[in-house]
Amino acid sequence: MTTAKRDTYTPETLLSVAVQVFIERGYDGTSMEHLSKAAGISKSSIYHHVTGKEELLRRAVSRALDELFGILDEEHARVGTAAERLEYVVRRMVEVLMAELPYVTLLLRVRGNTGTERWALERRREFDHRVAALLKDAAAEGDVRADVEVRLATRLVFGMINSIVEWYRPEGPDGRSDASGASGVSGAGEREVVDAVARLVFGGLRKAS
Amino acid sequence: MTTAKRDTYTPETLLSVAVQVFIERGYDGTSMEHLSKAAGISKSSIYHHVTGKEELLRRAVSRALDELFGILDEEHARVGTAAERLEYVVRRMVEVLMAELPYVTLLLRVRGNTGTERWALERRREFDHRVAALLKDAAAEGDVRADVEVRLATRLVFGMINSIVEWYRPEGPDGRSDASGASGVSGAGEREVVDAVARLVFGGLRKAS
Repeated sequence: MTTAKRDTYTPETLLSVAVQVFIERGYDGTSMEHLSKAAGISKSSIYHHVTGKEELLRRAVSRALDELFGILDEEHARVGTAAERLEYVVRRMVEVLMAELPYVTLLLRVRGNTGTERWALERRREFDHRVAALLKDAAAEGDVRADVEVRLATRLVFGMINSIVEWYRPEGPDGRSDASGASGVSGAGEREVVDAVARLVFGGLRKAS
Repeated sequence: MTTAKRDTYTPETLLSVAVQVFIERGYDGTSMEHLSKAAGISKSSIYHHVTGKEELLRRAVSRALDELFGILDEEHARVGTAAERLEYVVRRMVEVLMAELPYVTLLLRVRGNTGTERWALERRREFDHRVAALLKDAAAEGDVRADVEVRLATRLVFGMINSIVEWYRPEGPDGRSDASGASGVSGAGEREVVDAVARLVFGGLRKAS
C-alpha cells in the first residue's frame, strides 16, 4: 500500500482505502487501527464518517451489488430471447467486475461471519438465481444445451467469470497490464477479456465446424 | 472442526488435520498452538513428526501437485491429438480436484509469503504452462478456436475448474451432497461435475445446431 497522508478525506476515498485493506488483511483481520494507519487519519476522524468497519464493508459490497443488479435492469437484459439476454448479462458482468475490481473482489471474499456479510451472501445468491433463471429460460427456448443441469452450469460460468479478479489488473498508463506475476496475461484489455469469456461460455474451446 | 483426541497419531492424520486448520484460519493465521489444539496432541508430539507448520504445508501442497502432475504422465495425456489429450487432462483435473479436495483447496489459496509458498506457486505456474502448451498445440492442429489468446483461455478454463473447490462437497453416506448452503448443487455427483465441465469447456452453453 502506498497511501500518503491527505489533507482532505472524503467518505469515498476512505472507502477506497478500506477496501484495499480488507482485501489485503481479510475483513476479520482488519482493525480500526489498521484502517487509520492506511488512511493516514486518526480513528476519531474515521468515526466522523462511519460508525465502524462494518459500515465500510457494507458500503463497499453495496457498490458492487448495485452495479451487478443494475445490469438486470438494462434494456438488453430485458428485451430479446433469453439466450440473447443471458449473453448480454454475462458480458456486462465481466465489464462490471473489471470496472469495480476491488469492490467485486471484496464481495467475492465475503464469508458470512457478521450480519453485513450474511446479507451480502444472500444478495449474491439472489443475483445468481436471477442469472440461473435466464439460463433456464434459454434452455426452455431451445437455445442452450439441456444436458448440463442449470444450477451446475450457473456455478461453473460464475466460477469462470469470478476467477478474473485473481489475475486481471487494469492497464497502466504505459498501456501494459500490471497483472502481478503469475503467467501474466499482459496487456489483456477489457474488450479482449469480455470477448474471450463470451466466446468460451457460449461456444466453448472447440472450433466451430 | 470435530476432531477428538486420538490415541495414535500418524503423519497422515496430522497432515489431514493441519490442512483443515490452514484452510479455516489461513496459513499465516495458523500457529503451532492452533494445530496442537485441533489435533488434540501436544506441540512436542507434533514436532516429533515435523519440523514445523511449513513442513506440513509443503507436504500438503506436494500431495496436490503430485496428483496434478501425475495426470500429465498418464497414457491418455500423452497419446492422441492435442485436443483429445487436452480434454483428458481437463477431465482428470476435475477428478483430482474432487478426490483431493482439501489439498487442492489449500494449494489454490497459497499466496507466496514463505519459501514453500513461493515454490508451490512456481509449480502451479509450471502446471498451467504445460496445459497451455496442450491448448496451443490443439489450436495449431485446428481443433481448438484460435480467436481466444491461449494464455487467456487457459486462465479462464482453470478459473472455471478451480472454482469447484468453493462449492463442491463429496456426497455423504445419505447420498446427498453436504455442500454448505449457497445455491446448493445438492447431489451433484463426481461424474456429473466432470461431464458438465468437459461439455462447457469444449462445447460451451450454446446448443449444438
